[in-house]
Amino acid sequence: MSISMAALKQLLSRTNTLWKPAARCLAQSAQQKLLPDDYDYDGPHVVTQVPGPRSKMLLKSLDNIQNTEAVQFFCDFKKSRGNWLVDADGNRLLDVYMQIASLPLGYNHPAVVSALTDENNLSAFVNRPALGVLPPVDFPDTLQKLLQVAPPGFCQVQTMACGTCANENAFKAVFFWYRARQRGSLIPTEEELESCMRHEEPGSPNLTILGFEGGFHGRTIGCLSSSHSAPLHKVDMPVLDWPIAPFPVTKHPLDVNAQENRLEEERCLDKVFQLMQEYKNKGRPVAGVVVEPIQSEGGDRHASNSFFRQLRKLAKENRSAFVVDEVQTGAGLTGKMWAHEHWGLEESPDIVTFSKKMVIGGLYFKEEFRPKGAMRIMNTWLGDPAKLVILEAVLNVIQQDRLLDNMTETGQVILQGLEKIQDKHAEVFSNARGRGAFCAVDFPNTSTRDRAVATLRNKGVQCAGCGAKALRIRPALIFQPHHARMFLDILEDTALELKSLGT
Amino acid sequence: MSISMAALKQLLSRTNTLWKPAARCLAQSAQQKLLPDDYDYDGPHVVTQVPGPRSKMLLKSLDNIQNTEAVQFFCDFKKSRGNWLVDADGNRLLDVYMQIASLPLGYNHPAVVSALTDENNLSAFVNRPALGVLPPVDFPDTLQKLLQVAPPGFCQVQTMACGTCANENAFKAVFFWYRARQRGSLIPTEEELESCMRHEEPGSPNLTILGFEGGFHGRTIGCLSSSHSAPLHKVDMPVLDWPIAPFPVTKHPLDVNAQENRLEEERCLDKVFQLMQEYKNKGRPVAGVVVEPIQSEGGDRHASNSFFRQLRKLAKENRSAFVVDEVQTGAGLTGKMWAHEHWGLEESPDIVTFSKKMVIGGLYFKEEFRPKGAMRIMNTWLGDPAKLVILEAVLNVIQQDRLLDNMTETGQVILQGLEKIQDKHAEVFSNARGRGAFCAVDFPNTSTRDRAVATLRNKGVQCAGCGAKALRIRPALIFQPHHARMFLDILEDTALELKSLGT
Repeated sequence: MSISMAALKQLLSRTNTLWKPAARCLAQSAQQKLLPDDYDYDGPHVVTQVPGPRSKMLLKSLDNIQNTEAVQFFCDFKKSRGNWLVDADGNRLLDVYMQIASLPLGYNHPAVVSALTDENNLSAFVNRPALGVLPPVDFPDTLQKLLQVAPPGFCQVQTMACGTCANENAFKAVFFWYRARQRGSLIPTEEELESCMRHEEPGSPNLTILGFEGGFHGRTIGCLSSSHSAPLHKVDMPVLDWPIAPFPVTKHPLDVNAQENRLEEERCLDKVFQLMQEYKNKGRPVAGVVVEPIQSEGGDRHASNSFFRQLRKLAKENRSAFVVDEVQTGAGLTGKMWAHEHWGLEESPDIVTFSKKMVIGGLYFKEEFRPKGAMRIMNTWLGDPAKLVILEAVLNVIQQDRLLDNMTETGQVILQGLEKIQDKHAEVFSNARGRGAFCAVDFPNTSTRDRAVATLRNKGVQCAGCGAKALRIRPALIFQPHHARMFLDILEDTALELKSLGT
Repeated sequence: MSISMAALKQLLSRTNTLWKPAARCLAQSAQQKLLPDDYDYDGPHVVTQVPGPRSKMLLKSLDNIQNTEAVQFFCDFKKSRGNWLVDADGNRLLDVYMQIASLPLGYNHPAVVSALTDENNLSAFVNRPALGVLPPVDFPDTLQKLLQVAPPGFCQVQTMACGTCANENAFKAVFFWYRARQRGSLIPTEEELESCMRHEEPGSPNLTILGFEGGFHGRTIGCLSSSHSAPLHKVDMPVLDWPIAPFPVTKHPLDVNAQENRLEEERCLDKVFQLMQEYKNKGRPVAGVVVEPIQSEGGDRHASNSFFRQLRKLAKENRSAFVVDEVQTGAGLTGKMWAHEHWGLEESPDIVTFSKKMVIGGLYFKEEFRPKGAMRIMNTWLGDPAKLVILEAVLNVIQQDRLLDNMTETGQVILQGLEKIQDKHAEVFSNARGRGAFCAVDFPNTSTRDRAVATLRNKGVQCAGCGAKALRIRPALIFQPHHARMFLDILEDTALELKSLGT
């Protein structure tokens, strides 16, 4: 069932008349195009308000079945291509959000389509195994591909179905490691095995994970107990009372404000140290620290490389594990495969979690965090080989098309453009910041930000906010400088429009 | 890319020489065969010990990357067909375990292959959306298919990536519902929104979920706090101290031992009532009760329909939600789509969770459990439309091939056969029990059970234990009476062998 690229294009075009009449994108940059011409266009094509009438009709149907308050509009994925998302009403939008930062190569990338239609891969899609007990014959080889892009210092990996499960299981690995060291043995005692069934110590230990204000790691109870980005994520939920450290509120550009930022970061590190002592004294030691390289849901909050290097040392000195949550920052958007590679750590993290653009969830961990005993890190599916087939295609494209370099180059265009616009329209947005193409700006308040998102959408750019007032930019890895310039033009239009409305 | 059945067979046979020389299964039953002849055989084909040398070699490779202590052997899914699992060494086993009860139609079912190779479905596999914010245009229609097989009384459904996330989010829905009722409003107060960020009441309420001894609902922290099936699942993990009720230890057959079982069930229900009072008095009310129709990981523990009817009433009287976890029991194996349909409830459950044979995780819930506000039940992917494509094919086959009836009929053959063997070899196993084809027996102890599993495997049957000493039978829905007879013959051989070894 493997088909030629010509046949594939023909197949895609058959179901897709929208693409035929549109003008092709003219070369706006000397850079080579990463996709065939009919995957790219010289601009958005907006024919209705977004959401349009068909999206609104579909919303009504869906609302009969489940809560739809977060739905933006309905997508026609068959008609979407590359960086261009087509909605139910035929609007074609330049997508700098990519399904909450989760699609690495945009829509219908030929390499992913090709992997899907390769008969050798069919079995992986048809027969989902219980990976922890009955793995497929090619599983060790497949995991080697995951290890080839592991952060420096890692040779162990465990797949999971999503980012939340990756983080919950990272915490489990931390607790197992911590208790093994405390009792001096990998094997639990009889007393522990018996007391845990009554939820009592020593079997159910009172260990904690230290998280940060503004941090986000998922919405199950363990993840929620370490997440502090928004009240609506946490309210009404019982949680474990784990320590919450302040995350530096830094000023941008980081280098220009280095002195002031350093004081702020020291304040936060001091507080981390204090919390570690305080919780130790309470008999609830901090077994692990979890942090994102850029707080993403929390509003694109950055700290300096030095902050993270010191935090890593603090964790080590406290004998706490250092867990880096790269669910949103990983897989290349910052210009490196893993955002924490920017930090220049002396000693790598203990565990790095991933999902989203990695197509599959999971955790890289050091050998000492490998659990002893069957079934301790386990569930029925433990991920999905079908997603590993797609990931392999994605990783090949990242390498062949030098997409990390593309993110560095495109990111510079985005950030310089954001700075230029904010210099002209400081009252509309400010605080332009980013690493690679992982960029953001802040609006004066939530309502203006939300109005900007809506205005951008109706001008043909699909994007979204994060935190209280940030606009986040999370394009696919195939987002090139000429796309960035289109986005910036529309953003400047939007700024002018908001300004004229007296924002 | 849709291909004919003839082409499909040719394609499958090209990669698969194992199937050509094997003898075809002779009609052993008047029942119509559910799959083409070349999907079925007159017996297993075992050429090495299981695991064989190739599986052992692969295990070494995998063990360099992650813990492999639960791995049984490696599977060649390309060569597997229907009820027959082929391993890395070319052994062909009759599979009554089906990837921890998760494959509904066995291996490489033509209908699933056909769904995968249908060009209309390609986009769902290539473009994984963020379902909660940007659903595909066909999503409302797709969910209607999920609702067509909903348990009686449900018209709301939310998809999730796995059973664990289904249960964690069921608990969330319970807590939101409970707190909304307590405060008399769906909308949290300012005080709640603010206090939850410090993990303090009233924003972080001290609510609990009552689970049962032997119950299993997953391995993330919320699920673990309600699961009590094995110490190794829980030890070393901090949990929420939620109430644990005894689950009836019943004698089989249930109807023969009705009087004794009734007393035992009343004891447990009394204890549930006491715990509800006790936790209310502690200021930690039971917001929800979670129970499996048959405790599966806990060792196939059954209770009477009457027990569950009374439990449902008790929950209602205590103003607790009643959550039925059908992750393992759902999707037809018991002869009904949902195992709790056997109970004859006056009022349906409040939430029913599913995964495994349903191909996708999720929860059905009553309208009053629908959260108010965006992003309260949410994560990036919220399941996967690719799995819904497969599920649709599966549900069509279940209906067209009357697979629920097949489970009832095959289940009778299995259970009667188990009873016959245990009558002859009472010292080897006892306590035959089941509902539809969801069956089990108990061995005298863990080591004998484990030896039975290994012996069965080397005689060509893939199965597994659960609880301390049960052997669980979890075939695919296409497991027919003639397969059951093959399995029973090999089980009796195994009993004789264990007996001769002095078990």
